[in-house]
Amino acid sequence: MTTQNKIKVAQFGLGPIGLEALKLAASKPWADIVGGVDIAPEKIGRDLAELTGLPALAGRKVYPDIEALLAAARPDVVLHTSVSKFAAAAAQIEPIVQHGISVVSSSEELLCPAFRDAHLAARLDSLCQRHNARVLGTGVNPGFVMDVLPVVMTGVSRSVSRVSAQRVVNATTRRGPLQRKIGSGWTPAEFERRFAEGSAGHAGLKDSVALIAHCLGWKLDNITETGRAMVADHDITTPHVQVKKGQCCGLHQVGVATMNGRSVIELDLKMYLDAPDPHDAIQIEGEPPLRVRIEGGVAGDHATVAAVVNAVPRVLAARPGLRVMTDIAAPCLA
Amino acid sequence: MTTQNKIKVAQFGLGPIGLEALKLAASKPWADIVGGVDIAPEKIGRDLAELTGLPALAGRKVYPDIEALLAAARPDVVLHTSVSKFAAAAAQIEPIVQHGISVVSSSEELLCPAFRDAHLAARLDSLCQRHNARVLGTGVNPGFVMDVLPVVMTGVSRSVSRVSAQRVVNATTRRGPLQRKIGSGWTPAEFERRFAEGSAGHAGLKDSVALIAHCLGWKLDNITETGRAMVADHDITTPHVQVKKGQCCGLHQVGVATMNGRSVIELDLKMYLDAPDPHDAIQIEGEPPLRVRIEGGVAGDHATVAAVVNAVPRVLAARPGLRVMTDIAAPCLA
Repeated sequence: MTTQNKIKVAQFGLGPIGLEALKLAASKPWADIVGGVDIAPEKIGRDLAELTGLPALAGRKVYPDIEALLAAARPDVVLHTSVSKFAAAAAQIEPIVQHGISVVSSSEELLCPAFRDAHLAARLDSLCQRHNARVLGTGVNPGFVMDVLPVVMTGVSRSVSRVSAQRVVNATTRRGPLQRKIGSGWTPAEFERRFAEGSAGHAGLKDSVALIAHCLGWKLDNITETGRAMVADHDITTPHVQVKKGQCCGLHQVGVATMNGRSVIELDLKMYLDAPDPHDAIQIEGEPPLRVRIEGGVAGDHATVAAVVNAVPRVLAARPGLRVMTDIAAPCLA
Repeated sequence: MTTQNKIKVAQFGLGPIGLEALKLAASKPWADIVGGVDIAPEKIGRDLAELTGLPALAGRKVYPDIEALLAAARPDVVLHTSVSKFAAAAAQIEPIVQHGISVVSSSEELLCPAFRDAHLAARLDSLCQRHNARVLGTGVNPGFVMDVLPVVMTGVSRSVSRVSAQRVVNATTRRGPLQRKIGSGWTPAEFERRFAEGSAGHAGLKDSVALIAHCLGWKLDNITETGRAMVADHDITTPHVQVKKGQCCGLHQVGVATMNGRSVIELDLKMYLDAPDPHDAIQIEGEPPLRVRIEGGVAGDHATVAAVVNAVPRVLAARPGLRVMTDIAAPCLA
């Protein structure tokens, strides 16, 4: 494959996930990394070879915005891994799309963006179509185990009456920021207060519910979400946090959708320290009934980066517009 | 939804699977059944309401070929459930495609048709593009559990070194023709002789292997297939067959692909009477490793019909051409 045939890739957001995405993309024979964008002053101007430890990226720089990047290189696609909220993501993505450049994002609220803001989604879709660009939100959760995979299972269903999924993540084996984000060491009341005000908890559970409903054509009454602290029943020490018995050691978050007064979607997520039996499970009630289990579960961080990078060729092959995972080609390693 | 907006559907092949596909399609609010095609003299001219037991289909007839159907109605899509072999399927499908009508087929060898006959696949693809039609092969096995689902799982993989899957079907709970097809009551030697000559065994295992390799971009050394008899360890009586201890009660078929001398894909299928613990399982070796299990497995006949009908809207939305399941939108209930 010559450099001319390769997909030119830039990375927007050079935090831990962005750097991992960049490194994975750089390992693909189809990708040619052309540069990065980050607003952090200490990153601007630095060389991607230095930031990633990959000598092959020498000469590719970090720019403060997309215009500065475009003065040096023209990507076909931008990997966007900087923010969770749709409005914030759209503000960063619109200037990229205006140049006819497609975007694959890990923004949780881009999974099913019309659910978050139908008006903004229509505007971004229209911008994409005008400039022949595609925008997609993906990841592992949201983006795969509790939404796309259940939807894919219904491909062999004659009828579906209810979809449920459970995900249990042992946070002890995960990175420090995640161990802190789930409230490790807080009081249970502190976690629940912060969850209620939106400053703690897993982002994207409602988006997973919304994507399932969108795909099945279900007009929901509403989607509710609860978040409780998991309480440590023993002292726990990891390289990153210390938790005493009785303190919060993680979260138990549940998203439920009702239709005609009946619960039709229920997604149950537990992420906590020393969680036994980590796994993902899906049940499709209908004909035939389906019960799926992923032993050990799908590891979040590494797999999220994989989902973003793997989506690139499929996004570029899709029709222009704001796309969701279930209207581009079936997921696949790229 | 008005009749004008509906997808006009015709059924090609009115055997047991075709009739089930027709009945399921007729239950969909988006489908308008316009007629059927079958070569059997005793079916030609009959009313689909009578054949299916669905009064709503009154006035839709069975025609001897696509030209006769077209004189009465113009489908947007034809459900094709008549033959397994690619060459035979292509001979039936080409006259349909020439009218710009798309086809969703349960033909096992249409799952990854270029593997069976690259020249014929290219010709059919070109015909589709010239006439703005799409052709897709789908089903449950092949078509989902041992090929599309493993491929979809790799969408969250950073790397994949090997794919394996096992399917155990308890044939006692299945229809009579399947119980006979797997060799129930034959001697084990008789099953193995017939398997070797190609007149017994499960069709499509090599096609599943080929689709996985196609999606992962693997250039295989070769694909080998073995078929052994499962031998009854007790007398078995079903409503359809009687098997004595020591006779064949089903099959154990294995497809293996090697690349650079190493086994990289292994699909292991057991279908036999009184099989304990029916299930489907998938292992992806790579980063992260993935272990998936479907408790009880995906029921074959009903789900095959669902896969065919569910694919219709996604096939019509795809680019013209000969398509495989992994280059149209992700599977979903329709």
